[in-house]
This record gives sequence, structure tokens and C-alpha cells, in this order.
Amino acid sequence: MKVRSEIDRMKSQQKRFFKLIKFKEALSRMEKAIPDKPLENERIKSTRALGRVLAEDIIAEKELPDHDFAAMDGYAVNTQNIQNASENNPVKLNITGELYPPDHPTKASIGTFEAMYVACGAPIPNGADVVIKVEFIRREKGEIIIWKPVEKHRNIAQSGEDVKKNEIVLSKGHIMRAQDIGLLVALKQEFVNVIRKPKVAIISVGDELTEPFGISSNKTANNNAYIIASLVEYFNAEPILLGIANDNIDHIEQMIKSGLDNADIVITIAGCSVGLKDYVPNVLGGLGKPGIIFHGVSISAGKVSGVAVVQGKPIIMLPGHVGSTVATFYLFVTPLLNMQLGLGFSDLLPKITCILDGKVTAKPTIDLVLPVKVHIQADKYHAVPLKKHLSILNNLVDANGYVFIPAGVEKNKNDIIDVKIFGGLEFFNMMR
Amino acid sequence: MKVRSEIDRMKSQQKRFFKLIKFKEALSRMEKAIPDKPLENERIKSTRALGRVLAEDIIAEKELPDHDFAAMDGYAVNTQNIQNASENNPVKLNITGELYPPDHPTKASIGTFEAMYVACGAPIPNGADVVIKVEFIRREKGEIIIWKPVEKHRNIAQSGEDVKKNEIVLSKGHIMRAQDIGLLVALKQEFVNVIRKPKVAIISVGDELTEPFGISSNKTANNNAYIIASLVEYFNAEPILLGIANDNIDHIEQMIKSGLDNADIVITIAGCSVGLKDYVPNVLGGLGKPGIIFHGVSISAGKVSGVAVVQGKPIIMLPGHVGSTVATFYLFVTPLLNMQLGLGFSDLLPKITCILDGKVTAKPTIDLVLPVKVHIQADKYHAVPLKKHLSILNNLVDANGYVFIPAGVEKNKNDIIDVKIFGGLEFFNMMR
Repeated sequence: MKVRSEIDRMKSQQKRFFKLIKFKEALSRMEKAIPDKPLENERIKSTRALGRVLAEDIIAEKELPDHDFAAMDGYAVNTQNIQNASENNPVKLNITGELYPPDHPTKASIGTFEAMYVACGAPIPNGADVVIKVEFIRREKGEIIIWKPVEKHRNIAQSGEDVKKNEIVLSKGHIMRAQDIGLLVALKQEFVNVIRKPKVAIISVGDELTEPFGISSNKTANNNAYIIASLVEYFNAEPILLGIANDNIDHIEQMIKSGLDNADIVITIAGCSVGLKDYVPNVLGGLGKPGIIFHGVSISAGKVSGVAVVQGKPIIMLPGHVGSTVATFYLFVTPLLNMQLGLGFSDLLPKITCILDGKVTAKPTIDLVLPVKVHIQADKYHAVPLKKHLSILNNLVDANGYVFIPAGVEKNKNDIIDVKIFGGLEFFNMMR
Repeated sequence: MKVRSEIDRMKSQQKRFFKLIKFKEALSRMEKAIPDKPLENERIKSTRALGRVLAEDIIAEKELPDHDFAAMDGYAVNTQNIQNASENNPVKLNITGELYPPDHPTKASIGTFEAMYVACGAPIPNGADVVIKVEFIRREKGEIIIWKPVEKHRNIAQSGEDVKKNEIVLSKGHIMRAQDIGLLVALKQEFVNVIRKPKVAIISVGDELTEPFGISSNKTANNNAYIIASLVEYFNAEPILLGIANDNIDHIEQMIKSGLDNADIVITIAGCSVGLKDYVPNVLGGLGKPGIIFHGVSISAGKVSGVAVVQGKPIIMLPGHVGSTVATFYLFVTPLLNMQLGLGFSDLLPKITCILDGKVTAKPTIDLVLPVKVHIQADKYHAVPLKKHLSILNNLVDANGYVFIPAGVEKNKNDIIDVKIFGGLEFFNMMR
């Protein structure tokens, strides 16, 4: 057994950097210490860009549509010929042909008192300035009869009506959805520059941990690493699972250095409290400037979390209780990922206004970050607070979002409250 | 030019199946005609299950945690020894050792008036039933001094507290999120049965269309197919882009048959209106029972959409104007995908209550399906109606959801309205 003075010396060693600061102060230190610079571009196929972040404005190299076309089945005519048409003065026009969508480009034209059948999507013959729907004409032999005038351009999709040449159609920083991919395809733009995905090295810390599969062990599986890896993947980044570091300063240091060499962000899980064997802060204190920018935040879950910056790269210390690991991922890692993606230092989580289904109280000096289960009842969103211990994984499995209650604030049953949903995926289960 | 009688005959041919029915009737016919049977299972790595649908209940094969452990740094003691502790009667306990998380399993034990230091995560020595935080004791030489009793089990994470053995921890039909993957990993369950992704064959119809890349052509790119492919992918299914069918009965038939052979759902885009060259309904009318279950729905966008069932597989006719293509994908295809995934005939789209930023009126007999742009203003969701023509792709690029206004209903500026968001991905852009 270690003698008391040694334990106390080591304890004070672990507490070297530990000082509770406010959550807002923590974020503000991160924003100051970590350069707000998106990662490099990569050029990918436009059709594979779903969910990716544009690294450039998309400027239309051509107009859409690139020619006038019929937006309806009907007859292409010239409005001048029918401007005096009325019940008493029906106008007859000679049908001189038919046009279909593939007839573009067309040299077809109509003369005075002529009309041409145009199928929806067909080009407009020269000389025509309107398409009249079949319902508004009468057809007799080779002629159509029209008994009222129509305004110009009706039922014609005009060239450039959708997109003008040189128009910025999508802006840098836009997150690509299906319809945006359609637009690039319509413009026949095969490749697009997007921000590359941030690489995130994930290190589990603790002698008690084991890799979960392929090994027979009565140690605890490092499940938190796989939760974080899945979240990293979900939030548009690339996880690199570095495995388990022992509770050993050299081993932790070696793995963090490997993370810094191979990733844009390093995440450590556990080993950052103030216990005798919590060595992560010690290691980060010795890796170079600026090093630890904070360790300890007056939030629960997440009190012993911290952030360091080494070689210009952020290292996030996530606590080991799964409730804290996940909470601090959302609070500190998602804004970082978004910053590296050029989206700004913000979590961008879906926010839903809910009716609170139970009382929630934040301690006088500690902001409360509490998982909730949002469900729909009588067409309204309700949030059930989930208050089990931070080590209970099932509490998070029950949850689909969290509430942030500032220190000293009490929220009561039926209060209206904003919930941050863990991610878009949660809606699928929520809507069932 | 075709003679009138021939055109009229062909027109009536295209209209053979066309009859406007109500949207609800269309859904109900689909539910009746298409078997509500999930697709087969596939066995995948648990760590790759993000977004997948469970094909089985997950029953815990062990309890979590599988041993009692300290939830805090502190001293493990027996409450019986301190039940009479008070300021006037402080109790001294002899420190007999230290335990750390990797010390599990432990044979360590404490006797009467003994205590053991336990780090957070360490096993609990035999004989102890509580962990007392360091703040609540005084330490002197090899002893701790305690001056008040504590209730049993405090600061001990008890075995089975998170998950009990044989408990159903996740249910069939659950959509896997990061925390669920963590749970499977914690249970050391390496593989999991999920519903395989539906395969969706996508056929663009129209002589006027061209593949967008690698070909020099002044034809129109078949961009709608790529929008639908991206949506299919986003909604947990696997797109198979079959390419472009000419406006030719045989070619369309051949491609639909290929789709039926290779996919679980076939989607045709365009060629389903009642124009002379809209052959898709004709083809579907001749492929076998039950064939077309409806063609024509009193909705806008989507009036000429339809559904057939051939060889037990659904074939969805999406109209060709992009606004209609996308609207009918959400209305008819997403519920089908979810049905094949075992999630029920429902779109499961996120629903948000919004303030309407403009007037919207549905015609007396036609339900209106209108794209909207949801944005946040003064912390409230607002929805701007986007009313451009159905052929305008940019109208959808501006949109992130849609409203469904029943026939005859008028909604005014500042009315509260439900918006279905196109998918979780939309929130990223919306929250910026």
C-alpha cells in the first residue's frame, strides 16, 4: 500500500489542471485556441455527394432549361392571332405538325393562323408564344378553334426560368441533399469539390477494458469507443479506432501521439478524472503548447471533461461514464467537427419544442445536461427526463435527445422546453 | 401527321386506367394490394449496424454491469459498522488496501471496522455494501474517520442495474443508433440480424433524356433518376439505376421486367401522363395480375402518378416534372420502403410545427402537396410556401419539407401548420 504522502502527492498531480469553469467559458476557450479553418477539399463524383459539405460555390455553366418547352400537352400558337377571339368570333388555326420532347432542338415553325401540337416537354416551334391546353380548344379536322385570348408565355417553361447561366445555385458550406445532387446532374457537372471528412482518432483508456470481440476476457468491453465511432461517422467524419490505452503514462502518451499523427481530432475516453490513475491530463500537460486549455466544467454530465490543443490539433478528454461520454461528445466534439467542415462552431442538432413530462432541477452552480425521451402524444412533442446514473447505458438507449438546463434553473412538469435531438436518425424511431 | 381518329384512339388507350381517386383511397389500395411483409434478414457486424432495422429482439445474454463496482472514487465500507456514527461518535475504520477497475474479479474482502480505497470503476470488496466519497471522511494515517451513517448501496453500480440477464434490450423493428451499437458491444454481441435493404430499380422514361456524364448530347440529363436514387439511399434502401427507357412500349416493358427480376420495388419516372407517348400505364396494364391498382390521384403535385403490382412487387409510376417526382416519392415510396423494412406503411418523416409565412390554398377537389422552406426566426420555426412551377428544380433546392393541405382548405399567413421535413439531413442546413 502506498503511503499517504505519496497518494496525496499524486492526487495533487492529477488535479494540476483541474479547475471547474463555466460551460460557456469552455466553449469560448475552444473557439479562441482552435483555428476556425475548414479542412482541405476533395473532388468527388457529384452523384456521391449526399451529406457532404460543398467546398465551393456552384456556378451554373448553362441555363436550365436550356430551351423553351411545353409544360403541358397542348397546341403551340401565337397570341397575336387570337387576341380578338371570342364566343362570337372564334379563331380557326391550321394544325401543321406535332412536336415531342426529343424533337429538341427544333427548326419547326408556325406561320400566321397556324398551330402545332406539342406534347409536354416538347420544344416550342418558332413563331409560337403560348401553349393552349387541349381542354380550351375544339378540334375539327386539321384545325383547332379558339374562342378566347390567352396571355403570352402561358404553359411554356422558358429557358433560364429554373437556373440562369452564371447564377450561384448552391453556396460553399451547403450540405448536399438529394435535390442538390439532381441540380448538379441537370447541369451535367460530374465532379464537385467538398470538404474532406475530418479524421477522428478514438482512444479508450483503462486497464479494466477489453476489445469486445474475438477475445475471451472477463474485462469490460470498450463499448463507449464504438458509440463515439458511430457518432463520428453519423456526423460526417471518419473514425479511427486506436484501441485501448493502459493506465500508464507512457502508453497513453504514445497513443495520443499516434492520434495526432493520423487524425484531425483526438478523443480520449476516461482516464481524465482526478483519481490516482487518471493520467490523461498529465500526459496532455506535457505534450507542447498551448496544451490543456481547460480541464473541468461545471456541467453534469461532463464535469471532468477537458480540451487540449497540441500541434494545432484539438484533443478532447471525454469522461468514462457513458452518460458523460455521450453528453460531452455532443457539447464539445460536434461543434469541432462542424468547424473543421467549414460549418462554424455549432452542433447543428435538430431542436424541437417539447412539453416536459417531469420536473428537472439544475443544481445552483452546475448546468444540467440531461437525456430525454421525446415522444408524440396527441400530436404534440413530449420530453420525458431520464435521470438514471451516468453509468447506465440503457438510459441513453431510452433517450433520443437532451435538454440543457442552466445552473439554478428549475423546470416543472408541463413546462415548454427546447430539446436537442441526438441526430436526424432519431426521428425514424420517434415517428413510429 | 397522324389522322385524328388514330390520335383519339391512342389517347383513349393512354387513358384506359386513368381515373382520379382520392389520396387516402390510393394509400388504402396500396395497403390492400401489397403484402405487408418485411424482407429477409441479413447478419451483419453489430458495429456496422448504424441506421439499420433490427430483425430480431435483442435479448441480453448477460447482465450489465456483470459485477458491482464503485461509481465514485472513495472508500468501500460496511454500513453496519457506521450505523451509529455521529459527530460525537466518529467511527474509525482501518484501511486494508486499494482496488482499481482492472482488479475485477476480486477476492478482496474487508472485515469488521475495515475499509478499502476503491477507484471509480473498481470492484467492491466482499463485506462492503457502500462507497463513501472522499469528501465525507477524514483520513488519518492508515485509518478513515466517519461521523455519519450512509444508506446501503450508495455510490455502488450494482450488477444487473443497467441490463438484466434475459431482458429484451432492443426490439425487432428498432432503427439502430450509436447508443444501441454501444449496447450490443457492451453485451459482446458481435453480429446482429437486420432486415436487408430493399432494392429499388429506377427507370427514367423519355426519348428526350440522356445520361448526364461521359456523353456529349444536347438532350436533357435524367437528373430525376439521381434525385430518386439519392433519396432511396437516404431512406435505408439500395438504388439500382437501370437507365433510360425510350418512349417505346417494348423498351419500357423490357426494362420494367428487368427491374422486377432484380429489385423489390420498381420506380418509373415520367411516361405516365395521358399524352400520346405516355406508354408506362399501357405496359403495366399487360404484365399480369393485379396490374394497375390506380392511375391518377386528386393531388397536386402528383396527379398522374400510379401504382401497379406485378409478381407481388410494387411498381410506382412517378410523374416526370421534378416537383411531382419528388412529392410522389415521399407520398408513395417512403411508406413502401418502410413497410418492406418492417416499419409499417408510414413515411416516418420528421414533423415540425411551423408558422406559415404566406397564404396557401388547395383547390376544391385536389389535395395540395407543396414544398416549403422551413427556417428559424426568433427561435420559432417558420415555413415559406414555394409555389413555382412543378418543373422548376430550384424550387425543390430551396425547399426542405412539404405541407399537405387537404382539398378545399385555405391556410393563411401566420397560421400554425405541420411540415414534414424531407429527412434528417435537412436539419443540418436548417440549423445554420
